[in-house]
Amino acid sequence: MRVDVFTLFPAMFQSPFAESIMQRAMTQGLLDLRVHNIRDYTIDRHHVCDDMAFGGGGGMVMKPEPIFTAVESVLKISESHDTVVPIILMSPAGRRFSHKIAVELAMRPRIALICGHYEGVDERVRERLCTDAISIGDYVLTGGELPAMAIVDAVLRQLPGVLPEFAPKIESHAHGSLEYPHYTRPQVFRGWAVPDVLLSGNHAVIEKWRKTESAQRTAAALEE
Amino acid sequence: MRVDVFTLFPAMFQSPFAESIMQRAMTQGLLDLRVHNIRDYTIDRHHVCDDMAFGGGGGMVMKPEPIFTAVESVLKISESHDTVVPIILMSPAGRRFSHKIAVELAMRPRIALICGHYEGVDERVRERLCTDAISIGDYVLTGGELPAMAIVDAVLRQLPGVLPEFAPKIESHAHGSLEYPHYTRPQVFRGWAVPDVLLSGNHAVIEKWRKTESAQRTAAALEE
Repeated sequence: MRVDVFTLFPAMFQSPFAESIMQRAMTQGLLDLRVHNIRDYTIDRHHVCDDMAFGGGGGMVMKPEPIFTAVESVLKISESHDTVVPIILMSPAGRRFSHKIAVELAMRPRIALICGHYEGVDERVRERLCTDAISIGDYVLTGGELPAMAIVDAVLRQLPGVLPEFAPKIESHAHGSLEYPHYTRPQVFRGWAVPDVLLSGNHAVIEKWRKTESAQRTAAALEE
Repeated sequence: MRVDVFTLFPAMFQSPFAESIMQRAMTQGLLDLRVHNIRDYTIDRHHVCDDMAFGGGGGMVMKPEPIFTAVESVLKISESHDTVVPIILMSPAGRRFSHKIAVELAMRPRIALICGHYEGVDERVRERLCTDAISIGDYVLTGGELPAMAIVDAVLRQLPGVLPEFAPKIESHAHGSLEYPHYTRPQVFRGWAVPDVLLSGNHAVIEKWRKTESAQRTAAALEE
């Protein structure tokens, strides 16, 4: 899968993708992540990417031209935008990211993610260039970079070959329910013992216990 | 504010905090972020941090001892855990992170964040060591590192001195509603013009338009 990320802070993406599953997926060619600096697509001498907001109100707004130019150049699309690649703006006003959306995006051979910063992004980017806008939750972040990383991570885990065969099936949210509690050695730690059922060797009983725990957790979370 | 992060992948935190507002807050002493490698607190020769799950089921579970030892050493707390520092597990089964929780955490002088990985974390960490567990959304990530970064970012923005005075008031989610659309120059881009109202110079009318837009976006998001 190819992912093109457009950002003013490409260096932010270095270390999170240099570790663990994400790094391995890139080495194995399962993820082709390309991070593009929007500033490289400015045409003025000072490489200006932001400007004052029309209508007043403090804060700077990301200009439309460099973003359009960057995305159109990298995706090799014309101004009419007849692209089949989803172009997704990271935006607090976007639809809420979920496991379901991660599964949908994982079926695409290629996606593009645009990271906003400053006060916001000129609305014409959302209206005229992007095919979608996504928010990772109801909280305010400095930019779209951490959300883009989270989306790449969640999507990547749904690609065939990235995880061991069994893994996605037992993950939280994958079936709309939360995972059961996990325990490992030592069996007794500071006097706190692992639940007896897990030591019983009776797989049917263990399975039932886990289902009950998972259901209770999910119900408790929904009540919040 | 001091934030202690406990992780098996401390290097992941390097680049995201080397840029922008986060970097500035650290330079100015507003954020004292310390990232600790849980593996440094193992006492066995092979520095083992994970083990098989009791009760079967594939995947490795993070062991309790190194995490307890790491947190107790860094926070200088005894085994009775009479700490006033919130110790928060990054967990898909935790309560959902929100702007409200970010504001609450920003009032604390110090917080500790524990990042899970592998299949999960021994449940005794949640039950006996942590005071809270937080999820950043209904999707599955490889570990708690990206969620911890998102929480630090969101919390940091609520600290006095981090942002210009006006900024938090007009952000999405800060008042339970989404932000209005932003526009900057050029006034007409590829034939797409900025809404006339924003050029009117009439601040009362602009304010009214923005409120209406914000309310419409919020309503549309709630309908989803």
